[in-house]
Amino acid sequence: MKCSVFIATSVDGFIAKEDGSVDWLHTAGNPEVNMGNDADMGMNEYMSSIDCMIMGRKSMDMISSMNLTPEQWPYGDTKIIVLSNTVKEPPANMKGKVEMYSGDLQTLISRLENKGFKHAYIDGGTTIQQFINLKLINEITITRTPILLGEGKPLFGKTFKDIKLEQAKAVAFPNDFIQVKYTVNYL
Amino acid sequence: MKCSVFIATSVDGFIAKEDGSVDWLHTAGNPEVNMGNDADMGMNEYMSSIDCMIMGRKSMDMISSMNLTPEQWPYGDTKIIVLSNTVKEPPANMKGKVEMYSGDLQTLISRLENKGFKHAYIDGGTTIQQFINLKLINEITITRTPILLGEGKPLFGKTFKDIKLEQAKAVAFPNDFIQVKYTVNYL
Repeated sequence: MKCSVFIATSVDGFIAKEDGSVDWLHTAGNPEVNMGNDADMGMNEYMSSIDCMIMGRKSMDMISSMNLTPEQWPYGDTKIIVLSNTVKEPPANMKGKVEMYSGDLQTLISRLENKGFKHAYIDGGTTIQQFINLKLINEITITRTPILLGEGKPLFGKTFKDIKLEQAKAVAFPNDFIQVKYTVNYL
Repeated sequence: MKCSVFIATSVDGFIAKEDGSVDWLHTAGNPEVNMGNDADMGMNEYMSSIDCMIMGRKSMDMISSMNLTPEQWPYGDTKIIVLSNTVKEPPANMKGKVEMYSGDLQTLISRLENKGFKHAYIDGGTTIQQFINLKLINEITITRTPILLGEGKPLFGKTFKDIKLEQAKAVAFPNDFIQVKYTVNYL
């Protein structure tokens, strides 16, 4: 099964401030500009390419804290699995929308494959780092928000070795966000 | 005086491994590919736009350790100032090529301006971070080498506040390096 990442970071590589806040994502760049057909910066196309989502517990808590209405829910009926070794039940406002999973990630991927899933959206810093170190991430799209934060929670962490990225693509949007895309070669 | 940065990093934002090595810069990406007119990835055009260079002591030591022949010297007769509070004399193979400076950076910039210099190339991780926090860097070009290192010496460090980047440009080269360019807005 293909596993990919689609995530926003600051130019210095952070996905959130130390306190977890991501408000800078929404205020950065030039919000006045006409984005034409790129208003969603590829999100809808990406979402239509995946059929399931695996995220960490902190990502779930972040989404839960937003108290989204059904209209605001951005994931449609995509199957969402939340990884946690300690939390066994999702928060009340996430019930029926996510399944909790604890255990081996290879096993999880095999089970999803056996059920016919073909492309998983992997989300959350810790989760992405785990998947990279299991050589499970095939493709990474990073949308660099035009800001330097100085510190925060980094997208990437220690890796078991140098990891080669290939098939580089880049686009600078009119709002000064830059989106880059790579495939990952673990050889 | 305009101050700018032109530097290569890994995709996870490191300019060197923990031990200072940068050999991965030269082996990463796809070296077989035809780069056409982009073989230097903009370096010559950038060098012709600057008239002086300010680098940290570690950058000088790195260059010194390469024992470059006059033919290999990449900086032409560009005036080079090396910052150090402790080292007062350059290494033997750098004598006559660099001037040491210790002291206030605003004063240094004013002196260079008074001598007619117009655009300084600021190099070295620590030096770049100092200049950013003095609001002296106007433009940043980052050439992202297609590799994840996992750890090393980061290009960016703590900042006195969130710093807005503007006028984003991006190009993906055929060798899978991606070059991005921003102007810096400290307001």
